[in-house]
Amino acid sequence: MKFELGYTGVRVRNLDTSIAFYRDHLGMELFSRGEISENRGAVAALRSAEGGPILELNWYEEDSPFGGPYKEGSELDHLAFGVRDLGVALEGLKAKGHPVVQGPIGGKSAPWAYVKDPDGIWLEIYEAPAV
Amino acid sequence: MKFELGYTGVRVRNLDTSIAFYRDHLGMELFSRGEISENRGAVAALRSAEGGPILELNWYEEDSPFGGPYKEGSELDHLAFGVRDLGVALEGLKAKGHPVVQGPIGGKSAPWAYVKDPDGIWLEIYEAPAV
Repeated sequence: MKFELGYTGVRVRNLDTSIAFYRDHLGMELFSRGEISENRGAVAALRSAEGGPILELNWYEEDSPFGGPYKEGSELDHLAFGVRDLGVALEGLKAKGHPVVQGPIGGKSAPWAYVKDPDGIWLEIYEAPAV
Repeated sequence: MKFELGYTGVRVRNLDTSIAFYRDHLGMELFSRGEISENRGAVAALRSAEGGPILELNWYEEDSPFGGPYKEGSELDHLAFGVRDLGVALEGLKAKGHPVVQGPIGGKSAPWAYVKDPDGIWLEIYEAPAV
């Protein structure tokens, strides 16, 4: 039996806020949005480019089986985004209210740093010449 | 400034255990493994197919800035894997010690169900004819 990793789903407190962050600040394309009646929730799917990895944003009503308090945990270590110029990217994110929380790390050749998304999810921003 | 989603990093308690799970039970290819001295940790990178989404497994020493107790939280809602036949896939995972924790949901046309990885991360297994 073949398994194929399709996407990563992260839980968000407010779907509109998170869509705005990933679309307007990180340049992702929102290509799907809908309700999932079975889970009493709603989802949005975004990607940086067609054919690229998919990020699903999951929102649940409070009385959904997946609802309830939003707790900080360990499972999602980070989502990682490549950029051509780390300094410029970090300045832009800081100006939009998302300052560096750790870093830059890794020296001049391949530096990276961390910022947080609206729910406190750690985002690694790493320099990648090919982006 | 262009941002490109590169991969998802999940924190694991034991790198060997998690590599074995994703490689041997979910058929992923381990294509990179190394230590990250800056974070006092180690990483492994896996993918279902070349060019497909990348899953990074992150392990940290206890005294790493990213170490400490492993807490269950909300951020990582789930990782999703497509399969051609959901029933067969779920039987196989059950036989390997990973029974369904919720589902199947969604009816006959596009059903899905959830199992857990060795750290309790929810994995959605969904039926997709093209896989």
